[in-house]
Amino acid sequence: MAETLVLGYKKLMEKVKRMFILGSAASIVHWDMETKMPPKGIRLRSEQLALLSRVGHKMSTDPEVGSLLEKIIKHPGYDELSEIQKRNVYLIKKEYDEQTKLPEELVAETAKQRAITVDVWKKAKAAKDFSMFKPELEKMVDLRKKAAEILMKVKETATPYDALIDIFEPKTSAETITRIFNELKEGLVSLIKKCQSSPKQPDVSILKRRVPVDMQRKISKSLTNFIGYDTESKQAGGRIDETEHPFTTGYYDDVRITTHYHEENFTSSIFSVLHEGGHAVYEQNLNPEWIFQPVGTGCSMGFHESQSRFVENIIGRSREFWIYYLPRLKELTGNIFSDVDLDTFIRAINRVKPSKIRIEADEVTYCLHIIIRFDIERDLFADKITVADLPEVWNQKYKEYLGVEIENDSEGVMQDTHWASGLYGYFPTYALGNIYSGQILAVMEKDLPDWRDQLAKGNFQDIKQWLVKNIHSYGDLYAPTDLIQKIAGEEISVKPYINYLNEKHSKLYRF
Amino acid sequence: MAETLVLGYKKLMEKVKRMFILGSAASIVHWDMETKMPPKGIRLRSEQLALLSRVGHKMSTDPEVGSLLEKIIKHPGYDELSEIQKRNVYLIKKEYDEQTKLPEELVAETAKQRAITVDVWKKAKAAKDFSMFKPELEKMVDLRKKAAEILMKVKETATPYDALIDIFEPKTSAETITRIFNELKEGLVSLIKKCQSSPKQPDVSILKRRVPVDMQRKISKSLTNFIGYDTESKQAGGRIDETEHPFTTGYYDDVRITTHYHEENFTSSIFSVLHEGGHAVYEQNLNPEWIFQPVGTGCSMGFHESQSRFVENIIGRSREFWIYYLPRLKELTGNIFSDVDLDTFIRAINRVKPSKIRIEADEVTYCLHIIIRFDIERDLFADKITVADLPEVWNQKYKEYLGVEIENDSEGVMQDTHWASGLYGYFPTYALGNIYSGQILAVMEKDLPDWRDQLAKGNFQDIKQWLVKNIHSYGDLYAPTDLIQKIAGEEISVKPYINYLNEKHSKLYRF
Repeated sequence: MAETLVLGYKKLMEKVKRMFILGSAASIVHWDMETKMPPKGIRLRSEQLALLSRVGHKMSTDPEVGSLLEKIIKHPGYDELSEIQKRNVYLIKKEYDEQTKLPEELVAETAKQRAITVDVWKKAKAAKDFSMFKPELEKMVDLRKKAAEILMKVKETATPYDALIDIFEPKTSAETITRIFNELKEGLVSLIKKCQSSPKQPDVSILKRRVPVDMQRKISKSLTNFIGYDTESKQAGGRIDETEHPFTTGYYDDVRITTHYHEENFTSSIFSVLHEGGHAVYEQNLNPEWIFQPVGTGCSMGFHESQSRFVENIIGRSREFWIYYLPRLKELTGNIFSDVDLDTFIRAINRVKPSKIRIEADEVTYCLHIIIRFDIERDLFADKITVADLPEVWNQKYKEYLGVEIENDSEGVMQDTHWASGLYGYFPTYALGNIYSGQILAVMEKDLPDWRDQLAKGNFQDIKQWLVKNIHSYGDLYAPTDLIQKIAGEEISVKPYINYLNEKHSKLYRF
Repeated sequence: MAETLVLGYKKLMEKVKRMFILGSAASIVHWDMETKMPPKGIRLRSEQLALLSRVGHKMSTDPEVGSLLEKIIKHPGYDELSEIQKRNVYLIKKEYDEQTKLPEELVAETAKQRAITVDVWKKAKAAKDFSMFKPELEKMVDLRKKAAEILMKVKETATPYDALIDIFEPKTSAETITRIFNELKEGLVSLIKKCQSSPKQPDVSILKRRVPVDMQRKISKSLTNFIGYDTESKQAGGRIDETEHPFTTGYYDDVRITTHYHEENFTSSIFSVLHEGGHAVYEQNLNPEWIFQPVGTGCSMGFHESQSRFVENIIGRSREFWIYYLPRLKELTGNIFSDVDLDTFIRAINRVKPSKIRIEADEVTYCLHIIIRFDIERDLFADKITVADLPEVWNQKYKEYLGVEIENDSEGVMQDTHWASGLYGYFPTYALGNIYSGQILAVMEKDLPDWRDQLAKGNFQDIKQWLVKNIHSYGDLYAPTDLIQKIAGEEISVKPYINYLNEKHSKLYRF
C-alpha cells in the first residue's frame, strides 16, 4: 500500500483515538454527576462538562481531520484499504460532516436553547402547564428544523426528518419506519384486544410485596452475574449504582449500569438491571481489537435497544428463565415469595395493560407509545402539525391507539425529556430495537434449537456467545440496515416479533 | 485603567479559568480511579489521565499565555492593577515559567521514568531488595537534578534543591529549613526522652478493641459534621469514601476525602477523617470570589498541612475535644467503650513511641521522620551522598534520631512512594505544617482565650471561623513566608509548636 496512504490513515486514527479517550473520560465525569457528586458540585460540574465538550468538539472539527480524510479518499490507492479501514474512514467522515456542516452559531444557540427548554420543561411538567413549555419548545423545534435542512443536503436524505433519524439509526427513512410501524401497530392492537378479552386475567398483587432494598441489591448482583456482566470480581469491568432513571454508560473494560430500587415494586429493578445489563454486555463484547476505532462501537441505537430488550424481555420475561430463577429469587428473599408458583409469577410480570406512561408500559403496549411519538415527530417536521397542536394530537392518539384518557399534559405530551432536549428522530429506535430482537430470536432458534431448555437449566452462556458472535463482535462494521440483512437474511421485518409476542401471550392468556 | 491592560488581563484570566476547570475534571477522573473504578478499567483510565494531562499541559504552555503575561507586565499602567490582580499575574507567570522553561524532552523523559521507577519501587519493596530499585531511582534523581539546575536559574534560588522546594513551599530555602529543623529536632528529642523515661506510661490496649466498619462509618460522618465539612445534607459539598491511603481531592463546592477502616484499629479512621477533613475545610473556605483564579487556591503544601494537622492533632487529640466527643463515641459504639474513662483514652491516643514507619508515627516522633528525609534529600542534591548510600544513611539516622533498628529497606528507605515519583522538596512541607500550626495556635489563643472551654462544650464553629478569617480566606494572596508573618507577626518559628507539645505531654506523662 502507498506509504502516504498508510501514514495518513495512521495519523487520522491517532486523532480519532484521542476523541474516544476524551469521550470516555467525559462519560466518567457525567456518571459521577448522576451517581456520586455532592449536590453543591453541580455548578462546577456544568463548567467541567461544557469544557470537555468544547475540547471534544475542537478535536472532532479539527481541519486536519478534514484534510486527512480528503487525502485518503482521493488517494489512488484508496481501494487497497481493508473493509474495516474503509468503514472507519466512512464513519469518521460521516461524523466530521455532521459536526462541521452546521454553522457554529446554530450549534451554540441549540446548546443554549437545550438548557433553557429542559429547565422550563421541568417546571412546566411540575405545574402541569403546557403553555409555559410551548414557546421554548417551539424555539427548540425551529432550531432542529434548521439543522435538519442542512443535514438533509449533506446526507442526501429524502426529507429533513430523515436526516435526524439517520443520526441515531443510519440509512433508515421515515417512509420505511411508517410502513413497518403500521404493520406493527396492527399486530399489537389485535394482540392487546385478545389479551384484554381473555377471561384468564393475571393476578399482579404479588408484585407489590415489599422487598427490602438490600435484598434487591443482592438480586441485582446475581442477575448481572447470570448474564455474564461482571460487577463484582477482581477482574470486573462493570458496576451497579443507583439513580432515579436507570442508564448504561462507559466503554469496553469500564461499562457501568444504574438502577432504581422501589421497595413496593421489586420487579422494577429486576427488569431495569436486565435491560441495562443487555446494553452493557453489548458494549463489553465489541471486538477488542477495534478499541478506539469507530468500527468498535455499537451499530445503532436500534441495535443497542435490540440487545437490552432481548435480555430484559425475551430472556427475562420468559417462562424458562423463571423456571431457573424463581427458586433463586425465593432463596434471596427469605419467605416473601415462598407461596408463589411459577405460573402466577410469569403471568404477573407479563400482564398486558394499556397505560399512559411510556416507561411504565408492558412489553406489548410499549411500542404503541413509540409509534404515537414517531407519528407526531414526522408530522411536526413535515409541517403538518405545529407545536401548539401537540397536546390535542397526543391525547387523541392515546385514546385511539391505547384507549386511555390523558387527563393533563404532564402525564401526556410532557412526560418525556427527549423533545425538550432536542432529540427528534430518537424515539423510533426504541421500537426498531424490539423489531430487530424478534428477527434475532427467529434466527437464534434455528442455530440453538434447545436454547429454552438450556435457559431453564440456568445456562445463558450459549445464548450470550451466539449474540456476541452474530451481533456484538461486528460492532459498527455495517449499517443497521446491512447488519439485520446479514443476521436475518432479510431486511427489517415485523413478523417475527409479532409472532413471538402472539405465541407467548396466547399461552399466558390461554387464547 | 488602560483598556488594553483590562482586556489583556481578562483574556489571561479566561484562559486560566479553563485550566482550573480542566484540572478539577481530571481530579474527578482520578478520584474515580482510586474509589469506584472497576478493576479492569485501569488500562483505559491511564490513557484518559494521560490525555487530560496533555490537554492541560498544552493549555498552560500556550504561547499566548506567555505573550499576554509579557504585555501586562510591561504595560505602563501595570501598577494600577489591584494587589489581587498583581498576585494572579505573578502566580500565573511562576507556573508558566516552571512549565515552559524545562525542555519538552526532559519533561517527557521524566514522566516516562516516573512510571518505570514507581513500578520498580513496588516490586523492589515487595521483594525487600533495594538493589532492584537503585538503578531506576538513580535515573529519576538525575532527571530531577537536571530540572533543578534549570529551575534554579529561572527562580534565582541559591541551590538547585531550593528550586525544587520552591515548587511546594515558595520562597523557603533549605538553609532556613535546616536551621529550624535543627531546633525542632533538639526540642523533639528532649521531649521524647522525657516521655519515655516517665513512669506513667499509657495503656493502649483499648485502641485494639474491635469496632465494626459500619460503626466507624457513622463516626466518620459525625466527625465531618462536627468540623463543619458537610458530607450528608442536600447542600453537601463533600463526601467520604474508602481507599487504602486516605487523601483529599476536589475544588471549592466539591471536595472529597477518603479514609480506611481497620476493625482492630478504629482510631486510624478517626484521625485520618479529621486530618483530611482539615484539608477539606481549608479548600471549601477559600474566598468564593476568587474561584478559577490562582489566588483562590491554598497558600502552600506546608500551610495545607498546617490545617490538616491542626484539626487532627491540636483539636482531635486534645483533652477538650474528647471531653465532648467521648460520650458521643460511646453512644455510637454500643457498649464497646462503656468502661473507658477520659484520662485513659487521651493518654492512649497520645502515646509517644519511636517507630520505623512515618505514616504510623505519633504526633511527637512524626517530624523526626521528616527531618531524616529532608537531611537526605538536601545532601543528595548537593552531591554529598549518592543514591547508593541511601540505605546506610537512612538506617544510621533512624538509629541516631529515633533509636530504632531498620531491619530491611522495605521498612526503611523504600517505605514511601515520594522519591520513586520524583517528588523531592516535598517532604519538608509536612513538618513545616506542624510548625505553622503551633504558631497559628499561639495567636488563636490570644484571640479566642476560651477556645478550649468552647471545644469541651462541642463548639468548633468559633475556632473554624477564626481559621477561615485568618488563613483560609487569604487563599494564595501571600507567599507562605509572608502569610505566617501576617498571622503571627514573626517569621516561621519552632518555639510555639515545641511549647504546645511540651505543655500537652507534660500533663499526659506527668513530668
